[in-house]
Amino acid sequence: MPVRLEILARSLSTRARVGRVHTPHGSFDTPAFMPVGTHGTVKGILPGLVQATGAQVILGNSYHLMLRPGSELIAVMGGLHRFAGWGGPMLTDSGGYQAYSLADTNKLTEDGVEFRSIVDGALVNLTPERAIETQNQIGADIIMALDDCPPSVDPGAGIVNQTRLRIAARRDSGRRGYDHAARLREANERTVRWLGRCRTAHLAGLRAGDQALFGIVQGGTDLDQRAWSAERICGIDLPGYAIGGVAVGEQSEQIAEVIRFTAPLLPDAKPRYLMGVGYERDLFAACLAGIDMFDCVLPTRNGRNANAFTSSGQIRLRNAKYGMDPAPIEPGCDCAACLPGPQIIALGERLKSGDTWFSRAYIRHLFSAGEMLGPILVTLHNLRHFQRFMADVRATIRTDAWSGFLARWPVAEAGSVGVSNDLGEAGA
Amino acid sequence: MPVRLEILARSLSTRARVGRVHTPHGSFDTPAFMPVGTHGTVKGILPGLVQATGAQVILGNSYHLMLRPGSELIAVMGGLHRFAGWGGPMLTDSGGYQAYSLADTNKLTEDGVEFRSIVDGALVNLTPERAIETQNQIGADIIMALDDCPPSVDPGAGIVNQTRLRIAARRDSGRRGYDHAARLREANERTVRWLGRCRTAHLAGLRAGDQALFGIVQGGTDLDQRAWSAERICGIDLPGYAIGGVAVGEQSEQIAEVIRFTAPLLPDAKPRYLMGVGYERDLFAACLAGIDMFDCVLPTRNGRNANAFTSSGQIRLRNAKYGMDPAPIEPGCDCAACLPGPQIIALGERLKSGDTWFSRAYIRHLFSAGEMLGPILVTLHNLRHFQRFMADVRATIRTDAWSGFLARWPVAEAGSVGVSNDLGEAGA
Repeated sequence: MPVRLEILARSLSTRARVGRVHTPHGSFDTPAFMPVGTHGTVKGILPGLVQATGAQVILGNSYHLMLRPGSELIAVMGGLHRFAGWGGPMLTDSGGYQAYSLADTNKLTEDGVEFRSIVDGALVNLTPERAIETQNQIGADIIMALDDCPPSVDPGAGIVNQTRLRIAARRDSGRRGYDHAARLREANERTVRWLGRCRTAHLAGLRAGDQALFGIVQGGTDLDQRAWSAERICGIDLPGYAIGGVAVGEQSEQIAEVIRFTAPLLPDAKPRYLMGVGYERDLFAACLAGIDMFDCVLPTRNGRNANAFTSSGQIRLRNAKYGMDPAPIEPGCDCAACLPGPQIIALGERLKSGDTWFSRAYIRHLFSAGEMLGPILVTLHNLRHFQRFMADVRATIRTDAWSGFLARWPVAEAGSVGVSNDLGEAGA
Repeated sequence: MPVRLEILARSLSTRARVGRVHTPHGSFDTPAFMPVGTHGTVKGILPGLVQATGAQVILGNSYHLMLRPGSELIAVMGGLHRFAGWGGPMLTDSGGYQAYSLADTNKLTEDGVEFRSIVDGALVNLTPERAIETQNQIGADIIMALDDCPPSVDPGAGIVNQTRLRIAARRDSGRRGYDHAARLREANERTVRWLGRCRTAHLAGLRAGDQALFGIVQGGTDLDQRAWSAERICGIDLPGYAIGGVAVGEQSEQIAEVIRFTAPLLPDAKPRYLMGVGYERDLFAACLAGIDMFDCVLPTRNGRNANAFTSSGQIRLRNAKYGMDPAPIEPGCDCAACLPGPQIIALGERLKSGDTWFSRAYIRHLFSAGEMLGPILVTLHNLRHFQRFMADVRATIRTDAWSGFLARWPVAEAGSVGVSNDLGEAGA
């Protein structure tokens, strides 16, 4: 197997575990948070600075990369590791989610998803075989199967409140005689068939020896469908499995319920990856349920909008009240914005390391003036925030001192709902 | 004197000299190129990375900083060094040039320049006293006198080909009975009077002990006016002098002629600063004439537009021919884009330092996708380009091996016109 999970420790009061995933480009500690580098760059951040935040593995989006610059070009340039200057572990998604949610027009058949490129309008046919070929060319250490990802909640019920699947949801719900349960079953069954085709294509390719294909469990918020999907998907022998179709419009409690139900159905000995999640409360709930890997655009996207994550919630640095605030984004944080080391900040005779930082006032000024350094600093902070959070999760799994953890990370509190009995036993 | 020039070596065949300028925030080697940080940030680049390019001194624009976030706020935050996280030497201009060239409406009187803020439309009255107060609050090590900076060439002659003074030039040339020579004389005389007011205001302020006020010699392309201005400006005892009103519309030969004529008129023992210049050929000509300090937005502005400086000229990285080019921006360059060290690029088991770089193809992709990392990488390269260029100038001044220098920097060739006899003697 090109990718292997080594379990190092287990929580005694929850299903959480600490581990290390070994890949051909080095290993990463789990539970792991993967920053997203959609176009082959974590937006605005040099690879070395991404690494300095503590990130050990990053994600690229096959959908965007296949359209521009094209996976063939990336292959010619030596693969995405070399192209993007990231020597550590990488993962790519299949492109299916974006093909379904971003494209203006798309057509879903048993063969695959047909859509128009957002770059040049060209018609693209994304089949399981094409998704594997694309990811073989991009060359990440972990690649994902193409899945059929329908709205996880009935769009007819009108509670789809996330942007990304709105178009698809509106289209589906407007279809005469749309039956959400039937659509879920169809998607689930197709996802299993497509995984088989993906596996066959991957084994027939040149990268089966150094790229690990993960399957994806679907099923929306229907736990019976989740159970059926987990059984069928995990029945296909692969080096890891993911849970997809979560946090695409559900309430936070629904997210936690689905994760707690589904995670234990995935093999204990292999990496479990929860796709596209999310806020600290959701990460926390998922870690307690035994999830090992996460990715989300929140730290980078919100950072570009001046929204900084702190242990007690987000703060909006564009807010006028920060205009003369000399404090760092979060006192006590050790990121390159809150506590720049000598490698980050130039030091003269008067300005010594450790007694300076980029103030909220300065960062607000940068955003007011439209300066790139604003998004850069808040993104660096947010990336570090999520890495510090995961590092503390990993440390706490070894001690089960969850009440202390929640005191340090009030934002995670909501994630403990439903497992509070377990936490009560080990905490304090 | 808060700022002092130490001359370390002199060229035997030209007027060039190598030195070190000492300031309260450390020293910098001369001839020096100062990157421009208009709003208190070198656009897109963390201060530590600016420092890593070799820059030892940076410039801030008083005009922009006084309008946003306001010089009072910067003072409250501890001054620009601390606010912007740059502990080394800094210089601010007076704001006069931008007040005259950027504002939609401005009114020039003996008292000062009145203009409307580009931020909020408020009426601002920039007097010599206000320019000093503003720069005292910002707190740079070197501050500049407010000068009257008219178009350097007769706008009526229609050869003003730079953007920045076009508005002023059109307005002036459209004025009934506009007399360019008279306007130059008026500006020259006013600049001397304003320098006196600046000096008085600075000495009356709290920062006379740790901020050095430089005067500015004006006179356009009229050498008689330059001589008159140099005599009067340098007659006022100050720690350094600048040449202003150069490279604002003239031909390259005119620029070199004015510099070669004016530089020797400035005191030999004090720093000579040529404002807002420029291309390598102009920097080269000015270094040979005995100039010590330069600033220009070219490396940052052009970097943001994917124009990369190389020793043989600029290349446009958006050009389709670079789409599959695996080479770095400039082979042999040691910048963070062309030769990222382990602190810049994450290294895994397969990607080793020294055998990787950010390819032209990758950078072109970043610009195509609208990714911030594109401007960041090309800006880092360009900043390093100008620092490498100046370091080579400093080294060559000690040896006078100019033909070798020109072989390494073909872009500087045009700057040697008119001093070729001198160069011939010492070269080869």
